[in-house]
Amino acid sequence: MTYRALDSHTVVDYLRSVEALDGVLERDSPLVAKEVGDGNLNLVFIVENPKNPKQSVVLKQALPYLRVAGESWPLTRERMRFESQALIKHNELAPGLAPQVYVYDDAMSLVVMENLSHLEVMRRPLVARKRFPHFADHISTFMARSLFFTSDLYLTGVAKKTLQAQFINPHLCEIQEKFVFTNPFMPSPENHWNPNVDDMVQAVRGNGALKIGLAEMKAKYMTCAQALIHSDLHTGSIMADADETKVIDPEFGFFGPMGFDVGAVLENLVLNYLSHFAHTPDPDVRADYQGYLLDLVRDCWNQFAQKFEALWIEHPDGDLMPASFWAYPGGAEAFAEFRARYMAELFRDTVGFGGSKMLRRMMGIVSVWDITSIADLEKRAIAERYAIRIGTRWVLERAQMRTIEDMISVVTEEVTNT
Amino acid sequence: MTYRALDSHTVVDYLRSVEALDGVLERDSPLVAKEVGDGNLNLVFIVENPKNPKQSVVLKQALPYLRVAGESWPLTRERMRFESQALIKHNELAPGLAPQVYVYDDAMSLVVMENLSHLEVMRRPLVARKRFPHFADHISTFMARSLFFTSDLYLTGVAKKTLQAQFINPHLCEIQEKFVFTNPFMPSPENHWNPNVDDMVQAVRGNGALKIGLAEMKAKYMTCAQALIHSDLHTGSIMADADETKVIDPEFGFFGPMGFDVGAVLENLVLNYLSHFAHTPDPDVRADYQGYLLDLVRDCWNQFAQKFEALWIEHPDGDLMPASFWAYPGGAEAFAEFRARYMAELFRDTVGFGGSKMLRRMMGIVSVWDITSIADLEKRAIAERYAIRIGTRWVLERAQMRTIEDMISVVTEEVTNT
Repeated sequence: MTYRALDSHTVVDYLRSVEALDGVLERDSPLVAKEVGDGNLNLVFIVENPKNPKQSVVLKQALPYLRVAGESWPLTRERMRFESQALIKHNELAPGLAPQVYVYDDAMSLVVMENLSHLEVMRRPLVARKRFPHFADHISTFMARSLFFTSDLYLTGVAKKTLQAQFINPHLCEIQEKFVFTNPFMPSPENHWNPNVDDMVQAVRGNGALKIGLAEMKAKYMTCAQALIHSDLHTGSIMADADETKVIDPEFGFFGPMGFDVGAVLENLVLNYLSHFAHTPDPDVRADYQGYLLDLVRDCWNQFAQKFEALWIEHPDGDLMPASFWAYPGGAEAFAEFRARYMAELFRDTVGFGGSKMLRRMMGIVSVWDITSIADLEKRAIAERYAIRIGTRWVLERAQMRTIEDMISVVTEEVTNT
Repeated sequence: MTYRALDSHTVVDYLRSVEALDGVLERDSPLVAKEVGDGNLNLVFIVENPKNPKQSVVLKQALPYLRVAGESWPLTRERMRFESQALIKHNELAPGLAPQVYVYDDAMSLVVMENLSHLEVMRRPLVARKRFPHFADHISTFMARSLFFTSDLYLTGVAKKTLQAQFINPHLCEIQEKFVFTNPFMPSPENHWNPNVDDMVQAVRGNGALKIGLAEMKAKYMTCAQALIHSDLHTGSIMADADETKVIDPEFGFFGPMGFDVGAVLENLVLNYLSHFAHTPDPDVRADYQGYLLDLVRDCWNQFAQKFEALWIEHPDGDLMPASFWAYPGGAEAFAEFRARYMAELFRDTVGFGGSKMLRRMMGIVSVWDITSIADLEKRAIAERYAIRIGTRWVLERAQMRTIEDMISVVTEEVTNT
């Protein structure tokens, strides 16, 4: 089928023609479609069977024209391909933790997937002090499984590189490379920041040791092809409620350093923590919820590390290194020590990437809603000053950090002492 | 044109039909072809114009049938593609230091290139104590230019990843992954070693700290996509005489860690150095030539590091990091410090990869001719014991090594003290 843009009528005809949807939608029932996208890059339809509200899907289609500067049709199509491929892979590796993909149609540049409108994107409920009793368990499972099973720890070298070839994603990578590690820390027209923290922004731009650290983290992002990472795993890419957690929007996915994903989750929880200095004036209520958030940070790392290493022990035959390499007297201890050193480096990366990303949110092209929703610039600056101090220390002190308590201590020290 | 295997007659007809050879061969002159390959994977023809001996080319064509176990036609074709692509890239980046490619014909799975039969593969003349007055200069230029210009230090992220996609080389990588880092250090049927060093081979297999180091170097080889590396840059892949140096056989080329190439050159010079304990009985003659070889080791690293950093200073606008990132008071010093730290890590990688490769030559699938040409197994064991001690220390002590003198000291200490 050649490409044609769908509308709320033709989308129904399209879906009726797709046999792969049997079991998802009664295709001969009357179906109702509603366009809900922002019309920039993609059309987004929710299609429902009014007779059976459980039957509904989301169809996302790339548009062949531009409304956003700098985008082109091949790039938009490519983005749809990377997102679909990654969603399919995430479903395979971490079932239930990503929206299910029913159809990916490359010629039509569209994907049909599970409708998640019963869930919330996490940022807002976190600002509203909601709790997610399964979040640490779910996100740590998602990360452990999506990262471990796409790494050389599990795959053969040939299988890994074959998969990697499908995720060479230069244009989306470029966005992260420039806007996470470089442009926020030098004059660049798209940067904006709260004028009340201008002194700290200028200080970051002139901090040589910090900039060397950022350059080192960027080098790792650009070269360290450890696993298929989501590469944009902030709390705006996670939908959840009290029972479910779904990781969405993996269009930045490529083979990169695992710590970039783990660092993104932890950093966004800490930014939310800091936002409550403004959002939650009552000190007891605030302390209680902030304590909950730091527990989440701790649980996310600890559960991730525990699950990741357990998978490694359970599946010890990836090409780096197969179990037979450690099959000698004392080999079990050496393998354990190798794992410990591997996890320690993954933790240092987590801290360094978390710090880099925290800083860029304070002075780059885009902050986070948790912070920007603080209307009073002076109150907002309180959170931002903490974030700049914490992000700076995470980058500078990453090599000395041993446990998640070290990472959390930086947060509690900064908000206690300054 | 569809594929057909050439013979010494049809190869002449083929070459006559290729316009790209104008200026290389007078195509209407009588041309004489001779098949010189070993007939396993490839046909290799030398084709000359008897009227003008300066006019000659080598034509290398992949064969569609097997004589070597485990090879398949797609793999053989792929190998020809990677070799041709890499040769073309090396010529572009380091002109004069790789054989010139006149024609690459993908459909015919062949490449036509410069005839280098006036040069020698370096291993034998090094055993015969020949000197190569331009070698350090040439090989350091080759490495500095081929590595720098394919890295994120020079390229945009998009250009680098686009090039990287052409060099996803899973099957050839697998050979290095298994036979450099894994199999030599555990029971595996293809391993062989001198029975006189069996005690040391067993000790290596049971040395936990060393095996962790080897696993860490393998992790880096499998994930660290710094630049287009040759990936098999031993002295058997270099042809030279007193004036010229040409790097050949880059079919293992892929985006990997730079230190793997630099380490290969240094390690092979040291293996040759050790072989002279048998090849050169006269102690004065031996000491003189061994001194020359250690000077080469020193010069190769120092000139490489100097040229690489000079290229970086001259071309500071690759995507990691552009000059504007360092454009602030104190930024020049921070950039210098970042370069120093980058070069220090590249040196540590060089030491670690050099050590891994030295060890594998003593106990894996294939040694080096410098050593295997020592017929007396007891004399051979002298060189091999040194090599195992040096390789072990290079891997174990790599993190503490700061300068090339540290790396050389390990060699001189081991041969002096043991």
